[in-house]
Amino acid sequence: MTSSEVRPGEFMAAEIAEQPAVLAGLVERRADIAAVASAIAERPPRFALLAARGSSDHAALYAKYLIEVLLGLPAGLVSPSTVTLYGARPDLRDVLLVSVSQSGGSPDLIEVTEAARKQGALTVSVSNTPSSPLHSAAELAVDIGAGKENAVAATKTYSATLMALYLLIDAVRGGDGADAANIGELAERTLRDAEEGVRRATDRYRFVDRVITTGRGYSYATALESALKLAETSYLAARAYSGADLLHGPVAAIDGETAVLAVTGAGRGGSAMHDVLDAVTDRGADVLAVGSSSDDVPAALRIPVPVVAEELAPVLEVLPVQRLALGLSLARGGDPDRPRGLKKETKTR
Amino acid sequence: MTSSEVRPGEFMAAEIAEQPAVLAGLVERRADIAAVASAIAERPPRFALLAARGSSDHAALYAKYLIEVLLGLPAGLVSPSTVTLYGARPDLRDVLLVSVSQSGGSPDLIEVTEAARKQGALTVSVSNTPSSPLHSAAELAVDIGAGKENAVAATKTYSATLMALYLLIDAVRGGDGADAANIGELAERTLRDAEEGVRRATDRYRFVDRVITTGRGYSYATALESALKLAETSYLAARAYSGADLLHGPVAAIDGETAVLAVTGAGRGGSAMHDVLDAVTDRGADVLAVGSSSDDVPAALRIPVPVVAEELAPVLEVLPVQRLALGLSLARGGDPDRPRGLKKETKTR
Repeated sequence: MTSSEVRPGEFMAAEIAEQPAVLAGLVERRADIAAVASAIAERPPRFALLAARGSSDHAALYAKYLIEVLLGLPAGLVSPSTVTLYGARPDLRDVLLVSVSQSGGSPDLIEVTEAARKQGALTVSVSNTPSSPLHSAAELAVDIGAGKENAVAATKTYSATLMALYLLIDAVRGGDGADAANIGELAERTLRDAEEGVRRATDRYRFVDRVITTGRGYSYATALESALKLAETSYLAARAYSGADLLHGPVAAIDGETAVLAVTGAGRGGSAMHDVLDAVTDRGADVLAVGSSSDDVPAALRIPVPVVAEELAPVLEVLPVQRLALGLSLARGGDPDRPRGLKKETKTR
Repeated sequence: MTSSEVRPGEFMAAEIAEQPAVLAGLVERRADIAAVASAIAERPPRFALLAARGSSDHAALYAKYLIEVLLGLPAGLVSPSTVTLYGARPDLRDVLLVSVSQSGGSPDLIEVTEAARKQGALTVSVSNTPSSPLHSAAELAVDIGAGKENAVAATKTYSATLMALYLLIDAVRGGDGADAANIGELAERTLRDAEEGVRRATDRYRFVDRVITTGRGYSYATALESALKLAETSYLAARAYSGADLLHGPVAAIDGETAVLAVTGAGRGGSAMHDVLDAVTDRGADVLAVGSSSDDVPAALRIPVPVVAEELAPVLEVLPVQRLALGLSLARGGDPDRPRGLKKETKTR
């Protein structure tokens, strides 16, 4: 098949649809991840660092929350340029460094991982490419097993990365992944139940120019990933804020021409969104609520997501947003598989 | 004087102009900060955490870079909601927690600071309000001494916070603040030399809708603060990306209708911006270069900034951007001292 026979968005659509199977597969292969977790538990870290770029950065933020809440470890996101540009070589004994990259080929992450290992960190790579240089650079490796990614916009590698990070961190604390047991089935239901809402949202935001995405707690990662996905596929000026930060200033930029995609799940993060939604609604914003408690908030449109343990909600919440990004891209005459100016792997240092 | 006699933007303009004196004053009172640094050096931390919201979050990111590069300590930004929403109580022995808040009154930062102190962290507050609850919550306190802030948009408290954090971290490593000795004079020159460029940029971006700000290394903080300042005063859909992340996807959203404010200083961060500027220029973006090497890059407009040690550049670079935010707000019929929907202090938890 030559590329001219490929319909616009075909790769992205196919990979969105693969996710229930990819997620279920990861849960099935939980033992591999639990083995990595055991190796970590044998050398218990006192601090954790996460290194990533792009979509993986949002997965890393999700993992940061998991590590702080479930493992009770202080954690931080690595700023790769402190290592690659300024040559910082911090003392990393007792530090766990988790490097997250679907391709496993980003030169800056490889450099950060190699440097961290030399500085005494226990290094773990989480990637979709077992043969990648990142996997070789790290002492321990988690393969997210999402299969070859043909689409330019990351979808299945994003949700699989979240899932793998959850299973890893849950196993470090001695969990058995029980809350994730039926995640494949839930992902399937998420995509099915969201169809009508996504169709209506695609219509409604056909001409939107300004989008703000927002969420709190674990779902802040979903808000960040949603903004990136909309920006890179539909060229929208989409900007993400944590619900708390939004109220600290940027709310001033919201008006009747702003669409606000709010992630509103059951749980503490979602509950803390009520003030935020009141504030943006007061300012006339058009609210699209995505999440398992989207029915409980003021919104012009709602996309439901099945209830799941709050820590797992980001794995499901992103699925309808991916569909929306695909739908909007096509409706606006684009091809998310051939976005202007985007390459699959970017070689920054 | 009643509020009706106050001209639009008068408070913001006055506080922008105060900055050279505020910065010089901080350097003069360096001994107070060095005393806090000595207390830190006596209990050397192995890991640093920074807690902040809004503009202070950008100052915290700046400090994260300083801590990693100058002190060789791994560092992370606190996600307050892991503590306030999810009750995380990580083991923080050997951890330095720096809480940054101009008002010192944010309930979530107070809670984070109190919890961290109980968990064994050495806690330091950096604030403009010595009598604030945040100062009481922390074991050590740095007063940025910027004087009462009447404007809603933080300007002098932002640059003073950067300056105080630099002096603190420099003193922890045994520095004497020499590179900052003439910062007041340099700030004055920055504001004076930028006048023409700011006037032209205010004209040029009168009708702009989409702004992307970008920078690398220390100056990534400047890019973040610039986007926030433009969004909260001029209601622009301004979005900040690190130069590296921009190339990983969001560059696709850039076209001839996008203004790109690029921070391009002398030094390694600025040098690493060349690829980024080539990519956005290829996509037809209108580039405004701000920084000490703004002459060396392709740009439609340039705003010069005096050369200073790279770690200090963010203290100066933000000054002309504040003036631009003020100018654009007024040109667009707004009043940055009375932005819609923004309160001086936001009580999030």
